[in-house]
Order: sequence, then C-alpha cells, then structure tokens
Amino acid sequence: MSDTREQILEQIKVQGDLVRQLKAAKESKEKIDEEVARLLALKAKLGGDAPPANQKFTLKTPKGTRDYGPQQMTLRQGVLDKIVQVFKRHGGEAIDTPVFELKEVLTGKYGEDSKLIYDLKDQGGEILSMRYDLTVPLARYLAMNKISSIKRYHIAKVYRRDNPAMTKGRYREFYQCDFDIAGTYDPMLADAECVKIVSEILDTLDIGDYVIKLNHRQLLDGMFQACGVPADSFRTICSAVDKLDKSPWADVRKEMVEEKGLDEAAADRIGEYVRLSGGAELVEQLLADEKLKAVPNAVKGLEGMQLLLKYCSIFGLEKRISFDLSLARGLDYYTGVIYEGVLKGESAAVASPVKTSQQNGEQANEPATVGSVAGGGRYDNLVGMFDPRGKAVPCVGVSIGVERIFSVLEARAASSGLKLRTSDVEVYVASAHKGLHEQRLKVLNQLWDAGVKAEHSYKLNPKLLVQLQHCEEHQIPLVVVLGDAELAQGLVKLREVTTRQETNVKLEDLAAEIRRRQQTA
Amino acid sequence: MSDTREQILEQIKVQGDLVRQLKAAKESKEKIDEEVARLLALKAKLGGDAPPANQKFTLKTPKGTRDYGPQQMTLRQGVLDKIVQVFKRHGGEAIDTPVFELKEVLTGKYGEDSKLIYDLKDQGGEILSMRYDLTVPLARYLAMNKISSIKRYHIAKVYRRDNPAMTKGRYREFYQCDFDIAGTYDPMLADAECVKIVSEILDTLDIGDYVIKLNHRQLLDGMFQACGVPADSFRTICSAVDKLDKSPWADVRKEMVEEKGLDEAAADRIGEYVRLSGGAELVEQLLADEKLKAVPNAVKGLEGMQLLLKYCSIFGLEKRISFDLSLARGLDYYTGVIYEGVLKGESAAVASPVKTSQQNGEQANEPATVGSVAGGGRYDNLVGMFDPRGKAVPCVGVSIGVERIFSVLEARAASSGLKLRTSDVEVYVASAHKGLHEQRLKVLNQLWDAGVKAEHSYKLNPKLLVQLQHCEEHQIPLVVVLGDAELAQGLVKLREVTTRQETNVKLEDLAAEIRRRQQTA
Repeated sequence: MSDTREQILEQIKVQGDLVRQLKAAKESKEKIDEEVARLLALKAKLGGDAPPANQKFTLKTPKGTRDYGPQQMTLRQGVLDKIVQVFKRHGGEAIDTPVFELKEVLTGKYGEDSKLIYDLKDQGGEILSMRYDLTVPLARYLAMNKISSIKRYHIAKVYRRDNPAMTKGRYREFYQCDFDIAGTYDPMLADAECVKIVSEILDTLDIGDYVIKLNHRQLLDGMFQACGVPADSFRTICSAVDKLDKSPWADVRKEMVEEKGLDEAAADRIGEYVRLSGGAELVEQLLADEKLKAVPNAVKGLEGMQLLLKYCSIFGLEKRISFDLSLARGLDYYTGVIYEGVLKGESAAVASPVKTSQQNGEQANEPATVGSVAGGGRYDNLVGMFDPRGKAVPCVGVSIGVERIFSVLEARAASSGLKLRTSDVEVYVASAHKGLHEQRLKVLNQLWDAGVKAEHSYKLNPKLLVQLQHCEEHQIPLVVVLGDAELAQGLVKLREVTTRQETNVKLEDLAAEIRRRQQTA
Repeated sequence: MSDTREQILEQIKVQGDLVRQLKAAKESKEKIDEEVARLLALKAKLGGDAPPANQKFTLKTPKGTRDYGPQQMTLRQGVLDKIVQVFKRHGGEAIDTPVFELKEVLTGKYGEDSKLIYDLKDQGGEILSMRYDLTVPLARYLAMNKISSIKRYHIAKVYRRDNPAMTKGRYREFYQCDFDIAGTYDPMLADAECVKIVSEILDTLDIGDYVIKLNHRQLLDGMFQACGVPADSFRTICSAVDKLDKSPWADVRKEMVEEKGLDEAAADRIGEYVRLSGGAELVEQLLADEKLKAVPNAVKGLEGMQLLLKYCSIFGLEKRISFDLSLARGLDYYTGVIYEGVLKGESAAVASPVKTSQQNGEQANEPATVGSVAGGGRYDNLVGMFDPRGKAVPCVGVSIGVERIFSVLEARAASSGLKLRTSDVEVYVASAHKGLHEQRLKVLNQLWDAGVKAEHSYKLNPKLLVQLQHCEEHQIPLVVVLGDAELAQGLVKLREVTTRQETNVKLEDLAAEIRRRQQTA
C-alpha cells in the first residue's frame, strides 16, 4: 500500500506549505520542528534527499519532555536542596516508589484526567502505567505496608500526556515535590503545618510576593447544597468552579448552566459566594448566613476553617493567607481543607512581553505568567481505597510546583545574564611547558587524595594560555602552574585566576595551602 | 467465552496445588505471592470468596521493582552523596534526560539485550521506550546539542525487562550512576582517571576488598584474530568470553565450538590467553608473543594497556588493578579500554549462608554474592551514530553498580542490627499536661523560624510518657517540655533524651540554647 511518487510529491507540497505557514505565524520551535521532521521523512521516501543511513529520525526528546543541562541542573539542585531542608525541618522522611504502577492502582483515582495516563505496552506479564502523581503511589505504599502514620517527602518525576506549554513550565514529564502527613490526629494541627511549610518554602526560595488561598471541600459541598445543586452534581460543579482562576465568572456560569444543566438561579447563588474572600471575619459572616447555617456540611466546613485560621495566625501567616471561596482544586479525592500558593503580579513572570510585528495585526502579547506554585489538601479516604478491609489512614499534604518555580527562576536568571557555575572545581593543574603531563598526574593525584576538587587538560602538551583561559571561562578560582625550574626546587606556582597573583608553594604543602585559601576566601 | 463454574473449580484445584508446591519448595515470596494472587482471582470468579469491591487486585509493586522506605532511602542517600562527592572532585557536571526516549534512539544499540527494553503503549503520537541505560541517552544528548566535550555525571533509574534476582540486587527498575568524559584528548589520560574514580568511590564507601580488572577491546580483537577467529565472529566470541566470570572455561569453550561454530583449535588457543592476568610484566610478555606480534590490533591494544598501567601506577593504583585477558564486557559499543570493579571474597556477601533443613536433602547454600560493582570503558563511535554527519565524539566512562552496593550495605546493616535515623528532628516539643497545644504551636513556630528541626504530637492533649517514648524510639536528642508553672515565668524545660537531664531555659533563649547544645554535642 505504499504511495506513488506523484502522491508523495503532492504530500511534500502540502507539508511544505504547512511548515511555511507555521514559520510565518511564529509558532513554537517544537511545533515547527515536528512538521519539518515530517517533511524530511516525506522527502526521504523519494530517496534523493534522504538523511544518511546512521540518522534516519529527528534527533529530539519525546514531545513535552526535555534534557536538563548542567546550568539547569545546578539551578534545580539548589531549589530542591532548599525545599528538602524545609521538609526535614518538619521531620520529613524520604521514600521512593517505582516510576510505574500496576494500571489498576491508578484506575478510578483521577476522574476525567485518567485519559492523560501513559500506559506501557503489554509485552507479556503485568499491565503497567506511568505514575500520574506521587499521592496515589503513597496511598498504595501505606496500604500495602500497613503504615498508619508517617511524615514523608517524595521528590520524583511524574507523567501526563497533557498538551505541553513549555514556557509556562507545563511538561509531560515533570518533577513533583510532595510532603504529606498521614495519621489519625486532632483537627487542623497537621493541616496548618502544611500551610506553614508552603510559606516557609516560598520564603526561602525568595521567589517574590505570594498568597496562600484556603478553602474547605466540606464547605464547598455545603454551599452547593445551600444553593440548590443536586448532590450528584457536586463534583462536576466543583470542577467548574475550579476554572475561576483562569476564566471569568460569566464563562464558568455558562459551563454550569449550559454544559452541566444547572438551574440558572442556583448558578447565580453560587456566583454570590465564590466572589468572597477574606479572613476570620468572613468565616463569622458566613456562619451567620441564613442559607449556609441550615446545612450541617457548611457549618462543619466553616468551623474547620475557623480553627485552621487560628492556627495559621499562631504560625504568623495572617498576611500570607486568604480564605477564598472560589478555590476548588481539580482532584476528586480531597475531603477537607484545600490550599494553593499563588505568585502575585510580577513574581509570576516567566518571559518578557513579546513584541509582535505590526503586520501580524495582533495585540501586544501579555507576558507569560505562572499561577499556582503549590497546592494540596486533606484526603482522608484514598488509602482506604487500597486496603482490603477499607481501613482508612487520614492524610493531608502539599505538592510544590517546582517546574513552575524553575521556569520563573530560569527566566529571571536569563534576564540577569548571570551564568551559574556548574562544576565545583577548586584548582586547575596546568603545565607551563611541554613534557610535564606525568608531573601533572602526580600533583592531581596528591590533590584528589587530599579531597581537593581538581582537574587538568587531557592533552599531553596544552598551551599555557589555553589552560588559563579555561579557568577564566569556568570560574575556577586557582591554578597550579608546573614548570621544570620550580619543580627542581620542590616548588609549584599557585595562581589566583581573578587577581593573577602568583606565589611559589612547596609541593608537599600544596593541598594545605589550597584549603587555607578557601577558608580565608 | 467465560469459563463454566466446573472449569473454574478445576482451575482453582490446580492453582491451589501449585501454591502448595511452591511453599513446600520454599520458593521466593514474590513468586508465591504472584501465584496466590492468581488463586484469589480464580476464587473471586466464583463470587463467594471475592475480595471487597474496593480492592480487586493484589497490592504490589510491578514485578522486579520495589518501594524504598525511609531506612533504605537514608542508606541510599548516604551512598549517593559520597559518590557525587567523588564525581565533583573530578570536575563532574550533572545532567538529566527524560526517562523515555523515541524508540528509534535505542534501536540497534544493545545487541541481543534489545528484547529487554520496555516499550510504551502507542497512544497516538510518538513511539517511546524506557531508557535502558544512561549511556545511549548521553550520546543522543551530545549529538543533539552538538556538544564536543563534557565531564558529566548522571544518577537516575533505568529499566530492563530482565529476570529479577532481588537478593543479589538485580531489579527491573534500578539506579545507574554514571560518570563519563567526552572529548578528543590524548590517549589514556581520561581513561586512567576513570579507573582512579572507581577506586576512590570503592574506597570512600568502605565496602571491602576489591580489584579493578582491565582489558582492551582492540587487544581482544587482535587476540581473536591471532587465534584464527573469523572477523565477523569477533563480537559473538567476545560475548562468550564475557561469561567467564560466571562459568568455567569448559562451558565457554563448548558454547564457542558447539553454538557458535568456532574451530576447536582456535577455541583452545583463546583458552591459553584468557587464563592470563597480571601487570606491566604481562604486557611485556604478550608484546613478545609470536602470534600477537603479527597482529597490528593486538600490538596497539597492548601499547594502550602499557600507557594505561603507567598512568594507573602514578595514581597509586598498582595494588588495586589487574590486567585480565578474560575481561570482555557485554556491550557492543566499546572500542578501547574496558574495566570492571569486582568485590573480593566476603566483601561481596549479601546474605548469610542459609541453613537448609536436613529433610530437604540439599547441600548447605552458598551465601549470595554480588560480583561486579562498577564497570565501563571507552566508546568512541556511539555519539557519531546519532550525528547526521556522523561526527564522532570520543567518550570514556564508568557506571557504578549502586544497587549491588546497596544490597551489600543493606545486608551488612541488617546483620549488625543497627537502625539508621531516618529523620533529622533535633527537638520535640511536648506538653506536660492538658490544654497546652496552642503554646506548643507558638514554641514550634519560634523554633522553625530559627531554622531548628522540630516536631510535636498532632494530638491536642497527648500523654507526657507517650511523647517521651516517641523521642526515644526515634532517637530525637532533645525535648522541650511545656508546663503552666514554667510558662508563667517565661521558662520551658529542656530535657536530654538519653541522660534525662533537665534544665530550665528562658523561652526567648530556646533556639540559641539548642544551637549551643548541638555545637558542643
């Protein structure tokens, strides 16, 4: 069933037009590359323009994924180290789980989003899927090992076949960074600590101004009931409310009424509530609200909020939090408090405003921004779904949106033009002239054995200037310069790269002298 | 096509017998669990004995994978930190790549082992496979980004649908821990540094006595040629030699002659060489060998070995290395030096000898041992396979077998009975009596803001004894005990958990006092 030459030529013409259109419309590089690859593949079919035999496919990472080079890894490692420090300050223990799970473990946990799960091919044996988050694997781990209490953190990649938006930090493979407190405890003590953890992390990352929005699933359900939403529509109306961070009320109302068949009056009543946000005074006001007062779920949710706000105030978080009735969170499994850390205004920028050409006729682009950088809540029934006897382990946790944080910090680093050092080399061992490579190896060996981070050119006879330039480019602070004249006296030159100051040092004292310089640096 | 009740009853009988046989034969827990799961699934079909609706499948991780709990994570993190320290001492930079690649990237890189690659399901879009090692993704990364030199390390999980042997540290999902030097350099300088890195890592992990075996692919090829092996059989004969670490020569010879059709005389000539191992004197001896002298590849390989041994001797490695003609390494892509770090004797034990019951009639089991814990070599052509113009980037690298190292260290920790601390909590905040939970939160907040690692019970009114027991069980060194009497004077009790010594401390000085104690501890 292979195409004729004429058919292929026609396909090439169509595909070529598409590529030109995409380029004219300034589509994303990824999108263009993808279509160019198709074009090349078509041309290859003709034989004339085929790529060489050793490279028949586009050299790329899978859609929605990327490599992290040394610059990105250095930035990431710095961020993750700071986050782990906060987790440990609150007694967190690390765990890890496999990157894939039995498919059944994930089934029925993510509602509509299940379609985004990556499945593995059935190669004979178990049917597996890539993990979609770290929460369901935690629940499986707790149930499987009959663990009834733990404070655990887990930093690992998760997988979603979503539409990628790379500049905003939305990938198909991305890091999650979770802290959860599992165990049967008194109300809101663990919940408030999770809010405190979010605030400590956003403070320590110094990422800019933020607010932590708080709400309660029981209150939301009570509010829906009070507004006249049928009980079996609570979750679907909740997921409409969840869109309020991106869409105006008019759109959300339309979705409720037209798509989800909600009564217009009920939608309007919801509209009154979801515009409210505030602090303890708002809880008082709602506890006095005639419609809500009559619904036990609403009262319980509000009493929970009252206690949470009190504990948050003891933790000094009053200025950082906002009780916000429009906060809904997407996932089905939340049962109590929910929260979301959101960057405000300029903190959230990940790209400079793009100037669009006038020909294009479009309005000037808004700068890309990230919204939520942390989120979580209480989920008391998830572990029970895995336990053969349905034994529940109440849990509350938070997930830090590290990819979005990386995007913000990478954008900031790019606009500052600062280059992070990506290696820790303290000293470079250089030859002043030919024939010294064995001497270099001896000195290096001495330094490594003393724990000094050291490297050299892997050339036998490198030029001195090239070696010194390498140090400047890589911000290596010290160079040991070997030369026959000094070596004959048991000496080497120790040179500071920035000041170019040189001192002769006894070979046997070299490691100690380098240590001394670092301490006084 | 569903089975009748009678058919299912028969299947249950057969499956029940199988489970009993496996138990009698003391098969692995995993194997038994798997068959028990099948039995339960069959019983479930009858409806009578079905598990509850919320748990219809066995609660397990996928075959060949496992969770890492806090104890294992603490051990692992300690090992990985030490390894990274060595990598950084040699100027390593970190990179990371996606856990899956376009399937074509992996195609044709692993020879026979390709059948062990995990594929993802075709869900519309690209065809993907899980990475099988970190070397091929590195080569793809270098070619794609046109990087011609880098010293990079990469610590990440890789995936192989192999037959798991968990006690020996062989899993389907496991960590690799790689360091590679890419770039066009003078001979053996980078290669010798990789050998040095293996030795530094095994030394710093203090894992016991080891030897680093060295050989050269060019010498192997030259030797095969000298022995009369046809050129197109070099790779397949090489992979037979690779089995000498597990099988006796007689078996390997049989494979060469009977399976691979090698001439008996040629096999015998190979047998003479592969029993040789030694140092620089062996190189001399082989350079004088009539058969090898005549083969340019053999001479080049031997000259390479000579240089490598000289550099290794400058690095103080003479006692750690052994030039070993039986070392072949499995992978096709090596082109030069190859090496393998092997634990000797008792260092390699991962389980105590199992006493078998006399009824069983078997011989006493040998302790399980791990062999190779590090391996690598030079691969000069792999990057060129990805470059559209075939531009080569010579590489040499080493992969640390961290799973095997973890197995050895876990077995050692288990037999010593020592329990690692899995959290870093420095101080526990306790209530001496009821009604103090808000005071506890205030003190905790003060400590956290001062950077002190602190936790408390998430109960409103926990018993003091329970709180103190928690500290002893979790090896938390200090407890702050709150009581109304002291609080009225602005004081709290600070108690050392091991000595039970108590001192009153001013609340405002608490964080400073805790810091002081840690410094003098």
